[in-house]
This record gives sequence, structure tokens and C-alpha cells, in this order.
Amino acid sequence: MPKSPLSLGLLISALAVPSLGFSGNEAAVMHGFTASHAVTQSELEARFDANLNANDLRGWLQQMSSAPNQIGSPHDKANAEFMLSQFKAWGWDASIETFYVLYPTPKRQMLELQGPKPYRASLSEPTVAADRTSANRKDVLPPYNVYGADGDVTAPIVYANYGMPDDYKDLARRGISVKGRIVLTRYGGGWRGLKPKLAYEHGAIGCLIYSDPRDDGYGAADSYPQGPGRPAQGLQRGSVADMPIYSGDPLTPNVGATKDAPRLSIAEAKSILKIPVMPISYQDARPFLESLGGPVAPSRWRGGLAMTYHVGPSTAKAHLVIQSEWSQKPIYDVIAKMKGSELPDEWVIRGNHHDGWVYGAEDPLSGNVAMMSEMKALGALAAQGWKPKRTLIYASWDGEEAGLLGSTEWVETHAQELAQHAVAYVNSDGNSHGFFGAGGSPSLQRLVDEVAAGVKDPISHTSVLSRARAHTIVTGVGEGRNDEHAREARDLLNGGELALEPLGSGSDFTPFLQHAGIASLNLGFGNSDPSGVYHSIYDSFDHYVKFNDPTFGYGVALAEVAGHIMMRLADADLLPLRMAPVASNISHYAEEVESLTERLRAQTLEMNRVIDDKAFELGADSADPVGAPPREAPVPHLNFAPLKNSAAALSAAAAAFDEAYAAAINHSNKLDLTTRKAIDDDLRRAEQSFLSSTGLPGRGWYRHMIVAPGLYTGYGAKTIPGVREAIEERHWADTTDTIASTSAAIESYKAVVEAATAKLKAL
Amino acid sequence: MPKSPLSLGLLISALAVPSLGFSGNEAAVMHGFTASHAVTQSELEARFDANLNANDLRGWLQQMSSAPNQIGSPHDKANAEFMLSQFKAWGWDASIETFYVLYPTPKRQMLELQGPKPYRASLSEPTVAADRTSANRKDVLPPYNVYGADGDVTAPIVYANYGMPDDYKDLARRGISVKGRIVLTRYGGGWRGLKPKLAYEHGAIGCLIYSDPRDDGYGAADSYPQGPGRPAQGLQRGSVADMPIYSGDPLTPNVGATKDAPRLSIAEAKSILKIPVMPISYQDARPFLESLGGPVAPSRWRGGLAMTYHVGPSTAKAHLVIQSEWSQKPIYDVIAKMKGSELPDEWVIRGNHHDGWVYGAEDPLSGNVAMMSEMKALGALAAQGWKPKRTLIYASWDGEEAGLLGSTEWVETHAQELAQHAVAYVNSDGNSHGFFGAGGSPSLQRLVDEVAAGVKDPISHTSVLSRARAHTIVTGVGEGRNDEHAREARDLLNGGELALEPLGSGSDFTPFLQHAGIASLNLGFGNSDPSGVYHSIYDSFDHYVKFNDPTFGYGVALAEVAGHIMMRLADADLLPLRMAPVASNISHYAEEVESLTERLRAQTLEMNRVIDDKAFELGADSADPVGAPPREAPVPHLNFAPLKNSAAALSAAAAAFDEAYAAAINHSNKLDLTTRKAIDDDLRRAEQSFLSSTGLPGRGWYRHMIVAPGLYTGYGAKTIPGVREAIEERHWADTTDTIASTSAAIESYKAVVEAATAKLKAL
Repeated sequence: MPKSPLSLGLLISALAVPSLGFSGNEAAVMHGFTASHAVTQSELEARFDANLNANDLRGWLQQMSSAPNQIGSPHDKANAEFMLSQFKAWGWDASIETFYVLYPTPKRQMLELQGPKPYRASLSEPTVAADRTSANRKDVLPPYNVYGADGDVTAPIVYANYGMPDDYKDLARRGISVKGRIVLTRYGGGWRGLKPKLAYEHGAIGCLIYSDPRDDGYGAADSYPQGPGRPAQGLQRGSVADMPIYSGDPLTPNVGATKDAPRLSIAEAKSILKIPVMPISYQDARPFLESLGGPVAPSRWRGGLAMTYHVGPSTAKAHLVIQSEWSQKPIYDVIAKMKGSELPDEWVIRGNHHDGWVYGAEDPLSGNVAMMSEMKALGALAAQGWKPKRTLIYASWDGEEAGLLGSTEWVETHAQELAQHAVAYVNSDGNSHGFFGAGGSPSLQRLVDEVAAGVKDPISHTSVLSRARAHTIVTGVGEGRNDEHAREARDLLNGGELALEPLGSGSDFTPFLQHAGIASLNLGFGNSDPSGVYHSIYDSFDHYVKFNDPTFGYGVALAEVAGHIMMRLADADLLPLRMAPVASNISHYAEEVESLTERLRAQTLEMNRVIDDKAFELGADSADPVGAPPREAPVPHLNFAPLKNSAAALSAAAAAFDEAYAAAINHSNKLDLTTRKAIDDDLRRAEQSFLSSTGLPGRGWYRHMIVAPGLYTGYGAKTIPGVREAIEERHWADTTDTIASTSAAIESYKAVVEAATAKLKAL
Repeated sequence: MPKSPLSLGLLISALAVPSLGFSGNEAAVMHGFTASHAVTQSELEARFDANLNANDLRGWLQQMSSAPNQIGSPHDKANAEFMLSQFKAWGWDASIETFYVLYPTPKRQMLELQGPKPYRASLSEPTVAADRTSANRKDVLPPYNVYGADGDVTAPIVYANYGMPDDYKDLARRGISVKGRIVLTRYGGGWRGLKPKLAYEHGAIGCLIYSDPRDDGYGAADSYPQGPGRPAQGLQRGSVADMPIYSGDPLTPNVGATKDAPRLSIAEAKSILKIPVMPISYQDARPFLESLGGPVAPSRWRGGLAMTYHVGPSTAKAHLVIQSEWSQKPIYDVIAKMKGSELPDEWVIRGNHHDGWVYGAEDPLSGNVAMMSEMKALGALAAQGWKPKRTLIYASWDGEEAGLLGSTEWVETHAQELAQHAVAYVNSDGNSHGFFGAGGSPSLQRLVDEVAAGVKDPISHTSVLSRARAHTIVTGVGEGRNDEHAREARDLLNGGELALEPLGSGSDFTPFLQHAGIASLNLGFGNSDPSGVYHSIYDSFDHYVKFNDPTFGYGVALAEVAGHIMMRLADADLLPLRMAPVASNISHYAEEVESLTERLRAQTLEMNRVIDDKAFELGADSADPVGAPPREAPVPHLNFAPLKNSAAALSAAAAAFDEAYAAAINHSNKLDLTTRKAIDDDLRRAEQSFLSSTGLPGRGWYRHMIVAPGLYTGYGAKTIPGVREAIEERHWADTTDTIASTSAAIESYKAVVEAATAKLKAL
């Protein structure tokens, strides 16, 4: 599902230790391992690497992407069964876990423009000769946005750019309402599900989402099949469930969608949208855009079509019909386990989804086949006598595209066991050539960096860490830049570690991290190519081997990185967590929300002066009048002391822990199994201590107080979201509570860290 | 000639005195006038205003734009003769002053693409039915860039974006050379003449300049005739003389191009380019752009055509032929004088050019007819018995489009008289509906603001000053903005005056201000519409009355502002100059160049660390590799003390002057004619004291040490250019000399101000 989240800037960090940051050749320090175990582990990893085979990935990818594999398709089930048989053959204790989810599929769809220049939208993606599977139409569904409403609506159109909150402010300042109209938006700028949601909240009765050529078509790259840009009739399917409220089956929030689970009615399900919504190509969008009158669109609204973009409304009406078949359908999670030899009750979990929107070669199968190669290689090691010390669980999820269904239902079903046993969750999704990127829990940052320092980039043959570090620097440092990217780049140049990117949403880590409080990672390789075949029929094997990863070298590199992380999590003497990055991130977030408040205060004061000055009225261009924004109440002074006190306390606790941890590893003779188990247990529970039982305001399913998908960004992460979003939304009254609950979560994390430190010091 | 310089942000300031800043109704303080004379002057201005008539402007515009009026055309001469007869009829002492300039016109032009998809460029602008003169082809020349070289070249093409210095850096980092190739650039980003100049300096043998639809076509507005955007076959003619070196006839730098003036050979003329260059439309450009291979263009290089922009080179070759007729042609400046009654040896000069590229309705005739209406109204006042106290000189220049020929040759011819007599020069050029904008010598800032506070905007009926102020505020203040626009906006919000914009080039003020050291202004109304007919056959009467100023209300407003300024300059008891803005601007420029140096130092240090780190090599995207920029030498610490000391001394001198001036006006009984003459003489000479006899490094024609067109921006102004450009170009060794010469100019200005202060205090 992720729209190349890993290609957007660089997500991972170089190490403070230069020998790790810049070379994979030197003897590695290995976090969590005694010196002698580190040597054994390195040898094991070399054997693991030798078991990886690019041709395996190529074969599996071609087979699994040979037919449509969305929920309910025959090939979706066939892929699950194929994996099951493979996993068993490789020695894993594997089974398919089936859930039953609401999954509407299109029965009738129609979109036309009425008026003097009538047009009937094609709503289809033509066959491209160089792309073999595009000729195969068996089991291909018409393009749709799942979890939009059914409807038959006819109304004038208004263009609303990306359909994000700021765009509605721009419309309001031009006196244009979407009430009773159909909103035409373009992909980009934020999570697609927000577009129809915000359109509905502003009174619209329907929503169209098209892919503008400037964003991922010829304006970004040559069009497929010449290049990776989206072709004229290419379009982006996708879920529009209100995932920032909860992920998973819309009818079973908080519980697993087992056969006999209690279910909401469709009307009760908050994550299902209220208006019909349809994804279209720019070829289909053009007549609708051309029908628009009203002012010329603001410059940041203009796309790449050879025309002048207007805001609307149109005098001609659009007619949109969507009827779906709203039945329950089965989804197939393939779960494989390898029991731990020493600490079998500690579970290290790995996942990637296997369902795609059509053929799904890049998204998700490229990541899935990398994960399969890890499983085959681990199976081979096991056959040679190796056993993981902790239990490994590998999962290939179904139904991710519709809203993280397979992972969410599994997490909700096994919530109690996971709270008792889960150590960490390692996710991947689509993968491509480019730079290593990683996001996740900062306690795992050192582990990720050490592993990445030891994996070679298939093109440059330097470590994937050093390439990622270099890319972060060159894309972040620039003349006069002073943003978050520049800060990261400068930190790296100064020898600093770079934080793992905070995780928003868009893939299966969400239920693990943000609902269940399990330390999580999201890994992959990516680049700045436009994702022009994303969620289209052209995300195919032919496309993948032409533009994504012709040699599967990056698939193997992903298997190495994820595999080494899994093996170190499984075999470490103590769970390889480090607390300093957790504390420094939280301190940084606390500074950010405070300075955000100061900035908002100054901006509000200044903007109110401009409004009171009547400068917007006098200063408006008569040919394109833009009114004043609404006057905002002054920003109050907030009490950030609880947040800063808890952050400071955590910093001290983290430093003490890291010191005690290093000392303990150096005196490994004292680390007997009971001690290790007790310390691991603290470390395992640490991330859970960030959970709040009541969750975030208005969306209690999201319980992690440090990171969540943004309510108005969707994929994009918000850190200390309760506090940050209350400030951004100017809900000043809420900030007292959210500062208190966030501070309490930080205190609670600190207490767990201190408990672990005490045990380490007692050795 | 100006490409809407007045529409780019707002150029003028509100007053510190609220009664002036926000209303034109209250009794005005009138700088330079005693209280009783201010009353008389206000009455006179009201009578002047009553003599202005929008229908006059409309009639003159239609007549003067009815046929092509470029240099050498019959209608160019006819317009001059028409004005001469009018000026005489209105009571002015008028004559035509003829100069003889080198002016090549096209004899043969051809542009074709060879290779598998051959294309012959149309090089013509089709008739548009709604635009009547576009059907008239008599005396219309083929589109051309005057002062490019003749040539017949055949070579592959490279796309170089705007063809500015940074673009060549981008090419170099991609390993792409333009040597021996033809460079395809687009209009925008800097003065057009820099494009072929830089292409030549990088080894190219030809240059094409096209108008991209994103910049001034359908990407900015509906295409003409539906809107003001440039149509598919519209193109921009224009001079490519190397004007940042000197303006005027290329063969007669520093001397007037009279019949028998000494002349350089064409080969000796530094302002004539060395390679052929051709302006084309985007319709003609498209096949050439489509022929390009190589990497996809960087995102900031991409335009609005529905295609993927590549950098090149092409395998197919372009074939460009230009042959011109390189003869001398006459240009006709129409000069009209009205002798001063009290101080006839003090000349107040006003100008606007009358030559256009084709019909030239907006550029320049809209400004020229406003100036004509001033002359008619002043003539009527004179017929009723009024006489200006100082001498008025009005000039309608010819040959501005080719390179400020008429104004430059006149200034060079009359240099000695001007040094003795000129008080100020007030320029205008094309005019349109929108916001009042003004640039010029800060000593005139108070005068301009006071006048603008008393002229009503034809749409809002508030003063043109209050609209300009409001527009500056709303376009400058924004979330988190912290640039020069924001600084100006905040200054206004806090009740401050806003500086007149510094003048670069692009219209006839250049020889007066930057060569002769005469305090100058450039005035006009403008807006943010794209200048889509700029220098095309469609800059017509029909276009003007549809999109620019249908009622000629803004033409009349320009006549009011410029007329009042001229009358106050003519009639003031003491020349209405104020020195505080001069001093505060210079202090600000000194701070800017110092902080620019600090920023450059930090950036250089940081970039060199990134280069040494090999981050560019490791961090490059394999699909689109971009190499490291060249390593720069560290930025030395410079001695800015002389600059800061002279700026501080000027600040003190300016404050003393302004105080003494105000006191003197209040004791007007002591202001006899001899005293006034003596003080005026100091004030008149003040701007000349900014001149250096050797001029700016490498371009001695430009003698003003405080402001010049940028050597690498062309239209854009550079303040304290000797210092600033040496820093920007990293010519560290030059900075000692330029800091010294700039400081000396400031000291010299200070001395003149002090001399005037002494005379005022002696009263």
C-alpha cells in the first residue's frame, strides 16, 4: 500500500561510531551480544546470506503476480496456499489463519459529464503491448476506491486541488462552496481517504480523485512503458476507509474478524465514508476540468495538463454512479513459526502483505518475496542444526490494501498473547532499487544501523548505511536550508546518529505499533522515481524487472537487512535495545510543539493585525480577489512543564540504562537465563508503556501516545500526536489533558527503563 | 520594454504619518513647500487633474498603435511627428532630436529540426480574429532578437532551462556540455540577453529562446484572446544586447550617436553578441524539446508542455540561419520644454518611450499617452497663466526596445548640460490596471509617497498609496515567511515607510540614474497577470482595452501621480528631497553584504565538508546521477569597516539635514532666490556624488556605486553592486577596492549633504 514512503527523503541514520558508519568490513560491535557471541552471529549471518538467491525472488514474483490477487480473487487464495506449502517445505510450523471481512466490490460504475460537451469516462486501463499481464482481464475488477459509499449523484463540479484542509481554506477565501456539488481532487498532498472525507464534511455529495500528470505522470518521468511515469489512462485504486480513526475490518474495531465476532452494522462503522468516490485517470479527468468556470486556480493548484486550471464551479453537471456488492469475504494470513530454543515465549515477528490491487508486483509482492527468501534461508540454517533462541513468527498478510485488514485482525485476535510475548515487529512492503530507508521505534535504531552497516549495496558495493547516510546529507544540505531535513543532514555530517523516521501509517506496522504498543520497524529500499504505476494494472512483473529491480539485487539486500535484524533480535544475549535515541527524540518533539506554539502565536497576532488593517480588502487584485482568512483567537500560553520534566527524567533514565546495559554485556558471565528473561521482559514491555488505555482524542483505537498517523495527513506521522494535533487544530482546551496523558506515558516508559536498569546494576 | 517590473511585488511605501498613509482627503503636508505654497499647489493640482481626459488617452493609444512602430518603420516616424505637432499645439517648445544608430533587421531566418522527425519552425504569429491589428502585416518584421549575431549553424541541441548561471552548474553536475551545440532556453529567470551571452561563454554556437506555457501561457492564465495568457504561436521579441555592460547604440558607448560621432566597428562593439539567437513560440519549440535525450530535466526546469522534459543532447540536429541587414537607422526623440520662471537652469525631466516591438499598445504606448495627457494639461495651465518655477523637459524616446537607444544617446549627447542642470528624471513605460508601484532614488521617497497618498485608485476610490501598502502587506506577510518581502510588509504594519524599490534596468531611467547620476523615479500601475502578449504582435489596442485598462482610469491615475510629482519638483520652495531614506537604505545594504558573506562562508564550509565526505558520489541516485559541485575556496573575512563607517556618517548627516530642512521651510521668509538656488544646487548634485569616475569593475559605463542592473540578472537591481557582485562571484581580491570606492562615494554624498545642511543652518 505505501506510496513509496521510503523514497521520501531518507529514513535512517548513520552511527556515531565511524567504523560502523562507513564500512562493513571491520569487525562489528554487535549491540546486545557478548564479544564471543558476536563472532558466532556474524558467521551465522554469512551462512544466511549464502542461502539467499535472486532467482528465487524472480521466480516467486513472476508466479505470484501472474494473476490479480486482490481480496476475494482466486489467485489471492492460491498465493496463500502456495506460500503455506513452501513454508512447510522449508521446515516452518505454518498455517493459514482466515478472517471474514466486509469488502465491497463494484457492481455498477458510471461517470459522465452532461451539458454542451458531454463525455462518458472510460474508467479503464488499456492494454500496453510491452506489459504482458495488462492484456489479461480475468478477475480484474473495475477501478474503485474501496469503502466509499454507494450513490447516484448529479451536480456541478468544483476543483479542490489535493482536497486537503488548506485547499478548503483557499476555496472559502474565494467565496466558493462545494455544498451540494461533486468535488474533483487530484492525488497527492495527503492520504487519499481524507479527500472524500473532507469533501463530505464540507457538504459535497460526491468525490472524484484523478492522477495529475505533473505529480506522477509525464511531468515527473517518461510515461510507461518508456519510463516509470503514469500513462494517460493509468489510475490509482485505493482504500478510502477512515484509517486515521482505526484500521482493519470496518465492522470489527478492536476485535478480530473471526467468523462469529460481534459486528457493527455498516451504518455504525465509522471508517466507512458517506459519499461515493471514484479514482480516474487524467485522460478521463480532462473534460471535467475543462468544464470548470470561475477563477483561475491558485498557482500551487495547477497541474501538468496543457490547459488553464480553473476552480469552478462548472455549469455542466457530472453524473456519478457507484453500486457495490457489500458482502463478507475471507482473507488469508499465512503464519509460520520457528520455536525459540532458549526463550520460546519471546516472539520476534516479521510481516509483509501478499494482496495487491491488481497484479501487485512491486506493491506488495517485491517485499513479500524478499521475506520468503529470508524464510527459506532460515529454514536451511535450521535444517543444518541452528535454532533461534527466541521464537520467530513470519506472517504474510492478506487484505492490507483495503485497510491493513489481515494484520489488524490478527493483532486484535491475539492481543493478549502479543502483550505477553511480542518483542518486536519488522515490516516491509514494496521494494525497489535505491536507498535503504527505515522507520520505527527509536529503541531499535542502533540495531538497524549496525545491521545496515554490514549489508552491501548491490550497485555501489559500499554499505547500504553509507549510501543512505550520503543521500540524506546531499538531499538535506543546501544553500540556506534550515528545515528538518537540513537538521538531520547536519547532524550526520557532525558524526551524529540519525533517528529512524517516525512511522505514520500506510502499511501493516500500524496495528502492532500504534494499537498494541510493540516496538516496530518498517524497512525497504526506494528512490525518487515517480510511482506512476502505483495501484494500477501496470504494477506488473514486466514493469518491475524493467524499472524497479532488474537483478533483484535490492530484493536480496532487503532480505539481508531484515533477516539479520530478525536473527539478532532472536539470538541476542539481551534484547538489542538502546534508550538514548528514545529519550532524545522525545525531547526534540517536546521542543517542537513548544516552538510550534510560539510560531503560531506570532503568526496569529500578525495575521490578525493584517485582517484588522483591512489590508486583504484593499490589497486584493480586482481581477482575482482573495478575501481575508478568518480571524483566529490569540494563542494562549500553555504549560509544557510536565512534558519537559518527563522528557528530562527519561533522558537521565535512558543514559543510566545504556551504561548499565553496556557494562552487563561486558560481564556476560553473570547473564543467566533467568536474569536475561527478566531484563528482556522489561525491555519488551517498554514500548507498551507508551500506550494509553483511552487512546488519542476522538480515536481511541490509536493508543500510542508518541506516534500516530496524522488525523489530517493519514500516511504522515505525527509525533506526540495528542499534543501536536490539539495545537495544530487550535483546540487549546484539550492540551492540558493531552500534555498530561503524554507525560504520563513518558513517565511510565521511564519507570520500565529504570526497572531494567536496576536489574542490570544488580548483576 | 519592462516585463511588468512594477507588478512584481509592490514597490512603494506608506508613510510614517498616518494622515498621509491612509487618506487623500486631509490637508496634506507637502514636502518642500511652505504652508501657504502647499495650499496653492494643491489647488493647482486639482486644476491639472481636471484637464486630464481618459478619452484623449484612448484616442491617442488607438492611433499610435494602429501600425508597427519599431525603429525604422514609417509609423515610428509618424508617431514622433504627430507628437511634435501636438506638443507645439499645447504650447511646448518642442523639437525632434534625431540620432543614427546601428539597428540590424532580419533579412533571412530559418530554423529546422533535422533527423528522423524533421520540422520547420513557423516563426510567425497567426492572425487572431478578435484582435484586429493582428491581421495587418504591413511593416511587421519577422520575430527576432536584435543584436544577436548572424550565422548559419547546425548542431545537436541541449536544453538549459532559463539559461542562467545556476542552470549551467546543473548541467555540469550531470556531465552535459553545450560546447559546439545549440542551446535551447526558455524565457524567464533573468534578462533575456544573458541567455545567448552565457550560452556563448559556455561554448554554444547558437541559442533559441522560447516562451514556455507554464511561465506566461496557459499555465498562468487562459490564452489570448480568452485571457491574457500567451497563445501557442505567440512569441517574445526583444533585445539581447549586453546591456549590463552599457546601454544605447552598440557603436557609440559614452558618446551621443549623432551623425558624425566617432563609432566603433561592429567587431569592436562589446554589447553585440557573438552567436545567432532566435525567439520562438512553444508550438515551434515542442519538436525540438521532444528530440532531446539524456536525463529527465530537474524538476525546477520542467515547463508546462504536456511532455517529459529532458536535458539532452539531441541526436537530431537543429539548423539555425539568421542574416540581418546591419545598417544605420534614424531614431526620433521628441523633446519638449517649458521654461522655468524662477529657476530656469534647474531641469525637471520626464520621459517615456514611444517605439514598440510591433504595435506596442501596452508597451510602451499606454505609458506614453498618459505622459501626453500630462503635457496637454500642463499646457492648458500655462495657457491660463501658470508657469513652472523650474524648467520642465518632457521626452518621448525612440529606440528603447533595442537597448534604451533614444534616452541613452540623448543623455550621452547632453551629459555636460545635464550635470549642470538636471534635478531629477521621472520615467514611465507600459501601464496597466492594478497597484501603484514606484522605484528610484530614496531621496525622492517622501515626495512619491505624499503624491500617491493624494491620488485616488479608480476602482476602490481609496488612495493609490493605501492600496499599494495593503498589497505589499498581504503579499509579504505569510506563515513563517522571513524574506525581504516579509521584512517590508512588517515594516509597513509597524507604521514604517517602505523604500522605493532600487532600480535595475529595463527602461529609460538607466542612463539618467546609473550613467549620469541624476535622481530618478520609475512609476506605473501593474498587477499579477502574466504578460502573455509582451513583445508580441498581440500587444494591441484590442488587447489593451480588454485586459489592461478598459476605462483608461489607470492611465489617468498615472498621469496624476507623475504630473503631481513633476509639478512639485518644478514648484517646490526647496527641492523636495529627504535624506533619511538614503541613509537607512545604504545602512541596510551594508548589513546585507556582510551577512551575505557570513552565509556564504558557512555554506562553503558545509558544502566542502559534504564534498570531502564523498556524499555526492555515494548519495547519487543510480537512475539520475548528479555529481558534486566544485569545491570552493574558503570565504575570507572581509573588512567592512569603511562601508559601515561611511554609512554611519551618512546617517548622522542625513538626520541633521532633514532637521535643518524642516526648520528652513518653517522659516520661509529667509528663503530668497539666491539661497534657494544654492541649496538646490547641493541637492541636485547629491546623486551625482554617488558616481565613480572609473565606474563598476569591468563595466565603467555604469558609474553609480549604489545601484546598477545585475551583471547576471540584467533587469534585477544590485545595490552597492561593486561590493555585492564581487562577493557573489567570489572575487575576494576585488572587494578591498570596491568597498573603498563605494565608501568614498558614500562619503562624497555625505559631504554634499553636509554642505546643504550648513547653508540651511546659516539661515
